[in-house]
Amino acid sequence: MNKQELLELLQKVESGDLSPQAAAGKLKMQPFEDLGYAKIDHHRGIRQGAAEVIFGLKKTPEQILGIVDSMVAHGEKTILITKMAQQAADMVGSRHKLEYNEMAQLGVVGGGDANNAAGNIVVVSGGTSDMPVAEEAALTAEALGSRVSRIYDAGVAGLHRLLSYAETLAQARVVIAVAGMEGALASVVGGLVDCPIIAVPTSVGYGASFGGVAALLSMLNSCSSGVSVVNIDNGFGAGFLANRINHMGDAK
Amino acid sequence: MNKQELLELLQKVESGDLSPQAAAGKLKMQPFEDLGYAKIDHHRGIRQGAAEVIFGLKKTPEQILGIVDSMVAHGEKTILITKMAQQAADMVGSRHKLEYNEMAQLGVVGGGDANNAAGNIVVVSGGTSDMPVAEEAALTAEALGSRVSRIYDAGVAGLHRLLSYAETLAQARVVIAVAGMEGALASVVGGLVDCPIIAVPTSVGYGASFGGVAALLSMLNSCSSGVSVVNIDNGFGAGFLANRINHMGDAK
Amino acid sequence: MNKQELLELLQKVESGDLSPQAAAGKLKMQPFEDLGYAKIDHHRGIRQGAAEVIFGLKKTPEQILGIVDSMVAHGEKTILITKMAQQAADMVGSRHKLEYNEMAQLGVVGGGDANNAAGNIVVVSGGTSDMPVAEEAALTAEALGSRVSRIYDAGVAGLHRLLSYAETLAQARVVIAVAGMEGALASVVGGLVDCPIIAVPTSVGYGASFGGVAALLSMLNSCSSGVSVVNIDNGFGAGFLANRINHMGDAK
Amino acid sequence: MNKQELLELLQKVESGDLSPQAAAGKLKMQPFEDLGYAKIDHHRGIRQGAAEVIFGLKKTPEQILGIVDSMVAHGEKTILITKMAQQAADMVGSRHKLEYNEMAQLGVVGGGDANNAAGNIVVVSGGTSDMPVAEEAALTAEALGSRVSRIYDAGVAGLHRLLSYAETLAQARVVIAVAGMEGALASVVGGLVDCPIIAVPTSVGYGASFGGVAALLSMLNSCSSGVSVVNIDNGFGAGFLANRINHMGDAK
Amino acid sequence: MNKQELLELLQKVESGDLSPQAAAGKLKMQPFEDLGYAKIDHHRGIRQGAAEVIFGLKKTPEQILGIVDSMVAHGEKTILITKMAQQAADMVGSRHKLEYNEMAQLGVVGGGDANNAAGNIVVVSGGTSDMPVAEEAALTAEALGSRVSRIYDAGVAGLHRLLSYAETLAQARVVIAVAGMEGALASVVGGLVDCPIIAVPTSVGYGASFGGVAALLSMLNSCSSGVSVVNIDNGFGAGFLANRINHMGDAK
Amino acid sequence: MNKQELLELLQKVESGDLSPQAAAGKLKMQPFEDLGYAKIDHHRGIRQGAAEVIFGLKKTPEQILGIVDSMVAHGEKTILITKMAQQAADMVGSRHKLEYNEMAQLGVVGGGDANNAAGNIVVVSGGTSDMPVAEEAALTAEALGSRVSRIYDAGVAGLHRLLSYAETLAQARVVIAVAGMEGALASVVGGLVDCPIIAVPTSVGYGASFGGVAALLSMLNSCSSGVSVVNIDNGFGAGFLANRINHMGDAK
Amino acid sequence: MNKQELLELLQKVESGDLSPQAAAGKLKMQPFEDLGYAKIDHHRGIRQGAAEVIFGLKKTPEQILGIVDSMVAHGEKTILITKMAQQAADMVGSRHKLEYNEMAQLGVVGGGDANNAAGNIVVVSGGTSDMPVAEEAALTAEALGSRVSRIYDAGVAGLHRLLSYAETLAQARVVIAVAGMEGALASVVGGLVDCPIIAVPTSVGYGASFGGVAALLSMLNSCSSGVSVVNIDNGFGAGFLANRINHMGDAK
Amino acid sequence: MNKQELLELLQKVESGDLSPQAAAGKLKMQPFEDLGYAKIDHHRGIRQGAAEVIFGLKKTPEQILGIVDSMVAHGEKTILITKMAQQAADMVGSRHKLEYNEMAQLGVVGGGDANNAAGNIVVVSGGTSDMPVAEEAALTAEALGSRVSRIYDAGVAGLHRLLSYAETLAQARVVIAVAGMEGALASVVGGLVDCPIIAVPTSVGYGASFGGVAALLSMLNSCSSGVSVVNIDNGFGAGFLANRINHMGDAK
Repeated sequence: MNKQELLELLQKVESGDLSPQAAAGKLKMQPFEDLGYAKIDHHRGIRQGAAEVIFGLKKTPEQILGIVDSMVAHGEKTILITKMAQQAADMVGSRHKLEYNEMAQLGVVGGGDANNAAGNIVVVSGGTSDMPVAEEAALTAEALGSRVSRIYDAGVAGLHRLLSYAETLAQARVVIAVAGMEGALASVVGGLVDCPIIAVPTSVGYGASFGGVAALLSMLNSCSSGVSVVNIDNGFGAGFLANRINHMGDAK
Repeated sequence: MNKQELLELLQKVESGDLSPQAAAGKLKMQPFEDLGYAKIDHHRGIRQGAAEVIFGLKKTPEQILGIVDSMVAHGEKTILITKMAQQAADMVGSRHKLEYNEMAQLGVVGGGDANNAAGNIVVVSGGTSDMPVAEEAALTAEALGSRVSRIYDAGVAGLHRLLSYAETLAQARVVIAVAGMEGALASVVGGLVDCPIIAVPTSVGYGASFGGVAALLSMLNSCSSGVSVVNIDNGFGAGFLANRINHMGDAK
Repeated sequence: MNKQELLELLQKVESGDLSPQAAAGKLKMQPFEDLGYAKIDHHRGIRQGAAEVIFGLKKTPEQILGIVDSMVAHGEKTILITKMAQQAADMVGSRHKLEYNEMAQLGVVGGGDANNAAGNIVVVSGGTSDMPVAEEAALTAEALGSRVSRIYDAGVAGLHRLLSYAETLAQARVVIAVAGMEGALASVVGGLVDCPIIAVPTSVGYGASFGGVAALLSMLNSCSSGVSVVNIDNGFGAGFLANRINHMGDAK
Repeated sequence: MNKQELLELLQKVESGDLSPQAAAGKLKMQPFEDLGYAKIDHHRGIRQGAAEVIFGLKKTPEQILGIVDSMVAHGEKTILITKMAQQAADMVGSRHKLEYNEMAQLGVVGGGDANNAAGNIVVVSGGTSDMPVAEEAALTAEALGSRVSRIYDAGVAGLHRLLSYAETLAQARVVIAVAGMEGALASVVGGLVDCPIIAVPTSVGYGASFGGVAALLSMLNSCSSGVSVVNIDNGFGAGFLANRINHMGDAK
Repeated sequence: MNKQELLELLQKVESGDLSPQAAAGKLKMQPFEDLGYAKIDHHRGIRQGAAEVIFGLKKTPEQILGIVDSMVAHGEKTILITKMAQQAADMVGSRHKLEYNEMAQLGVVGGGDANNAAGNIVVVSGGTSDMPVAEEAALTAEALGSRVSRIYDAGVAGLHRLLSYAETLAQARVVIAVAGMEGALASVVGGLVDCPIIAVPTSVGYGASFGGVAALLSMLNSCSSGVSVVNIDNGFGAGFLANRINHMGDAK
Repeated sequence: MNKQELLELLQKVESGDLSPQAAAGKLKMQPFEDLGYAKIDHHRGIRQGAAEVIFGLKKTPEQILGIVDSMVAHGEKTILITKMAQQAADMVGSRHKLEYNEMAQLGVVGGGDANNAAGNIVVVSGGTSDMPVAEEAALTAEALGSRVSRIYDAGVAGLHRLLSYAETLAQARVVIAVAGMEGALASVVGGLVDCPIIAVPTSVGYGASFGGVAALLSMLNSCSSGVSVVNIDNGFGAGFLANRINHMGDAK
Repeated sequence: MNKQELLELLQKVESGDLSPQAAAGKLKMQPFEDLGYAKIDHHRGIRQGAAEVIFGLKKTPEQILGIVDSMVAHGEKTILITKMAQQAADMVGSRHKLEYNEMAQLGVVGGGDANNAAGNIVVVSGGTSDMPVAEEAALTAEALGSRVSRIYDAGVAGLHRLLSYAETLAQARVVIAVAGMEGALASVVGGLVDCPIIAVPTSVGYGASFGGVAALLSMLNSCSSGVSVVNIDNGFGAGFLANRINHMGDAK
Repeated sequence: MNKQELLELLQKVESGDLSPQAAAGKLKMQPFEDLGYAKIDHHRGIRQGAAEVIFGLKKTPEQILGIVDSMVAHGEKTILITKMAQQAADMVGSRHKLEYNEMAQLGVVGGGDANNAAGNIVVVSGGTSDMPVAEEAALTAEALGSRVSRIYDAGVAGLHRLLSYAETLAQARVVIAVAGMEGALASVVGGLVDCPIIAVPTSVGYGASFGGVAALLSMLNSCSSGVSVVNIDNGFGAGFLANRINHMGDAK
């Protein structure tokens, strides 16, 4: 509720169109539905420019289905479910139109707004093994309405592979750099482009990669300017943010 | 050198305007100057939309001055020097027009482009002690041509302080959230706005803050979407990236 | 044995009612039973105001049953078993009246003292996935004789969800704040209430959450006063302590 | 502003005693003063039952003095300043009535409410070297209105020292256990009392104490129930929380 | 080969009883047998006062059996196999006289020297869940010829349990203190006895116990003198060392 | 493309043998094939003196097979596949001539160049349990054309075992020292030889070995000169590098 | 107070030689003196076979002097002060007969019992830089009545240096192995002797030695049996424990 | 003593030219001199192909001078002193011919063998701030007899700087890659050359660089083959090893 709405509410009280009790109720009314195990925010799309996202990790299939049911009932058009296991996908898919990508463990109910796809996000990954995270990022951005180009297996050990895509990179509005092991990709890409780079460390590696910590630290210490970092394996977060940046340029 | 320039170069060879030897030389020519201890990139402004930045940590005052001399001689208009000690500021300031902010340890030679300042970046910080990093971010963005609003000492322990600035936050194109200790500010801000949030953990705290690690991990694990993170105390990085995002909206 | 009992014992020796040898024996007599693999403390209820609690992790079902048998035989009325696997619950339940909550992995033999339920503990959790730990806390406090209110899935990314329960929070005598990921909930709650807050980090998250470390550090560094922390996923510990504080107010 | 106040405000609008504009203003009015570098919360005493506390670390003496000036001007009676350096104490003390304890680095402006001192908090510490933190806890609780008993240098290596104070411990309403090195004190005390124990790890130690991490982990993993933990060296936090618990027992 | 043997060897060369070539060969001759995957030291019993020990972790059952076969063929009387899985025990037990303790994952081929059992080692453990490690220590010491007393589930949360065994502890020549979680047991025992204490941290615990790190750090920082530490869960190492100390007192 | 080739290309443009457009294409032509999920570098053997290596971890059997197919089709003679699971070996082996070592999880398609085997690499390991990593190193070096000697189970606890191989070590051109637990082997070997030592920490151990971190740190801090380190369990990396060093001595 | 003394006390009550009140008092009487900042244990020498030790770190010179004064007044003959700064040594030395070793930061008031020096402790160190810790160990053991041999700068990089002292090592009753960097010394020594080895990691090193963590982990994971470990730089602890073991052999 | 020397010694015994006692003595004779605080190895040059190196950290100037005196007296021609402070350099330089590089904290007594300088080592560094470590590596290799090329400030953020030196890199026999922050340089260089790469992480950076840990992990996880790693800031180790590899090619 912004200031204008507040003023209008109070003017209705002044004019007698609304009782103080009703106004107090409205001021307290929450734009969410309480399922007991979850409080679903039906206004987030309006407030934050994207549909509600369900973080699937450690939620039961029944809980996920219940949340989707509630959201669909409220007219939510696009619902993303991240870290979604096959079992939950089966249950949700049996009742709703679900596109499920097993590798990325990402489900989309209602499909993305393909029509208003815009901009140009480039997802570049270091190795084949990084694909699940890279796809989570790419599919998320697409579901939210962005055009996405993919450059996979372009790690810095064979620099010519990456450099051969210099033009694609140069035309990006946002680059998502996905890499495990030493995570050097973000810095190298950072030196090639002049747009924001979102770095996603992955847990690909073994030994002293410590489940992605090596790549995470590498990316946080990037000597290239313009790089910021999200959590290890957080392809969704990168795709979400990239899409948000990609849609900037509207007046404010 | 982009594809177009490459074609033109080759056409000059074809037409005999340029010998193969000269062309090979040009293709190898590097747009940087080598001072021995530093290789200065005089074309970065063109390639990446911002002036060269000098990372001052562990550089001697003499080295910093040498780099500034070279850049000014090549016509660089705005030069940022981060993590710059007072002693280096004195030396550089004695020969160049330097604005130096001691708290932020940031120097700007040549002054920022105040005239084309645009957009609306909001820098919000958790506590008074976070100011050096917050100012580093704010001053960087201003020097690079952005308008910046500051909301300092608005930590989540007194939520009403932050909420009272809801309108300012709502009008931001980018928010930089600067916080030490538990770093919760980024998540709370992330729930209030629909623009990109750049989180900057600071080393403010003691004991189990581990020099900013607590805030860093907190921010990387933010339950709010739209948040990405830069290194601990990296105000410059956040300001640089925020400015880059702030200037988006141009066609591509 | 307190000072008064010691004096009485010695007076019996002085009066000849007790031989020195017998007195020495009594002074050494221990209020516990030794099962070999466990030493059961049958007086803890008297000394510490709560029944014995069995830490079920890495104990065999047979060991747990043996301890319960012994305690019931000594008239223990309420026995909590934490981190109890289904298999152990089956074995104990076949011989004793057991209420077992699978999600919280908590068993209660003998039922809690529902009648003298008192006070007002509020358990607030960040997300649906934190429920097992939140329920362990809530059920523990209830079993020990406290009234408990639950506010689940009220993470800081959607602050209005939490703020809509401001009154419930304001009336709490103790708040238990349960959160994984960045654990910011504890600080935000800490700014809203004036009662003790017990923060419970959970292992919910992935990547740089490091099994709950991010939330733990966040909570230890809370900028809100009045917050203390228990171990990651230690819902029992929080419920136990909250109940203890909740029953304060008696003369001393 | 609680619900009752909101209703009254709205009734004044209904009755014409207040214009909608004025009401909107009041609803937005924040109970804090903005000094630029700090936002001072002048209503916290009312909301949270204690005076504002100034976290002195990394604040300049000038900033601390400015905050104190503002608070005193608003009639604040008791102001605590933690992690306060001697230099800041000198500056504040020159203009205000300040009690400064150098060892604990704690300043109190206005003096505590000695008259309404109540309850019985026991601060027990492991070694002489833990005294600065122990005193920070004790002085904080005293300044806020609690009676405090001290048992110092009672580490578990000489258990009889601690056991000889069993009666003092038994009469505590809250115990604050302060220890560095292996931090075993909290667990041992936890087995002796039936009141809440607040454990404070200190950075006393060397080598594998890792600046207090060993004690912190030890306390988080305490096998005694009823123990919760605050940050390393956070004597203030423990004293603040202990005082809050100590004043419970009032109806709610 | 000690100095005396060296002199004798050389005297045989001088006297012509041995050719230089043969002597050189003998000087190079190794007191071990090479199985390819293992080099078995058949003289260790003589050099180091105990039989060879086989570290079973990550060895295949076939490898373990092969090593045992070789040792038995060389007349080794007592062979310990640590971290031995049931499957390996089955295979070795089918061909050799093996005593296998599944809980401790310890196998002993040939049985210990029960007859010359001497001294008095006390193994004290914090909780029932520590028993596998405690038994590994106790059984190792017994197999090597020591008398062992066990005090299990005597953690510091119920100090009277431990104190009731003060006499048993006082008569120990060596105490092995086995504890997980906060590992405070070692410090408390260290304050009660005047013999060497070997502390064994266990991986019992969860959350911030970090697989035994909390107990390990606690024990390394023990404020009690006379305590040294072995690796997490290294019951064998403690039992081996305790037995070695227990057999001291021989002239040297 | 080296400078000479560049000159020749440009001379063809000058002479009219090549159009500028075709030249530009050639300059952009990449010596790799894009399978979508992988970009295969068919010129690496020429550029870097060894065949392409496939990092098998987290790649599906289908992906691995696809890469092998492509490489074989381009005439690659020796293809190594590391961290290759049995299932992938079965699939690749059904279509190509594959030598697969299950213990080392290493596959070699096409067989190594046994004929030109040269030099003398010694792989020494601390214990039987280190064999999988040691074999990965040895087999890699052999597949790439080196002669390899193996000294296994020669840990420093029985120094005579290692010292008895002093001559073998002395004749090595490179030594690969493979050890888990405390990793002391590298330092001891480092004191015995005057050739490069490549240290490979393994994840063998338990408790405070932290999955190989203890050995890794030990090796990085080796007091012996001439030692460098690769990642935990990276037998391949050590074998690859050792082979590269082993083939030095050619003019340059 | 042992069982015999307890019986005698009670018999005096029975015989009327002692009133119950007086007996209760005696049972509570503590064998320590309370200086406020320290509780001095005047009976430890009797209970634990060694004089009281003062841990000097973070104690003021005045506090140390006060404790020494009290102990000397009670007839304590040998007082060790560890981690003692020069300033404290000056103050204590001005009033008491103090032997102070600046390198080891160890002070001994009253001198050790040189006359009853017995046994044979060998202190072996890896490098010259480890001497402060090695000397702390050696001087402690000597002050408590042991004979000590020193082998310094005998690190494993030059194994012949250590091996040349094989006979000295073989005659040791206890070996203290002091090493920083990779800490391999403990394992190598462990393979050479058949007596207890106390390993002391030191903070000597840089980079990935992490203040002694590398050596600590190395020693905890020693593949040699018979090795236990004390805290980083804890020379005192090693010397104290070695002396205790060295004096074993008495009947019990 | 190698096998040949052993045979000759024994033949002298056989021939009566040497008594067994004398031979035993010789076999025990150590090729080092014992200064008490240091054991100087005067034969290392022979055994390991390089002069003795003095690790200067935490050694007193007097100790360093004493060691140098002894080595010079034994005819050592080249002595390196690493991590040498200015004060020690002054003292050593007053008596010996010392070349001291303050930035690299490296001293060389006697000068390197410039005449037999051979091969081609390239030292490449990421930034100006890495120069101290890079110079330590370069000067070490030069002092030991290698030719060294330097490419400084060639970090991956401006890739064209590095690529412009592709030819220099291609002609290297060994590359030393020195970088702090994210350490990506090693991987990028690894993709460009076919010789061994020695990676040296530096402590340059702040925040989450953790004193060089980020670069260290990055380098250990390099996706480029042929890379091995030395300790953080260990320029000496890299220079020493590079020189050793550089001098390979001799028959063996």
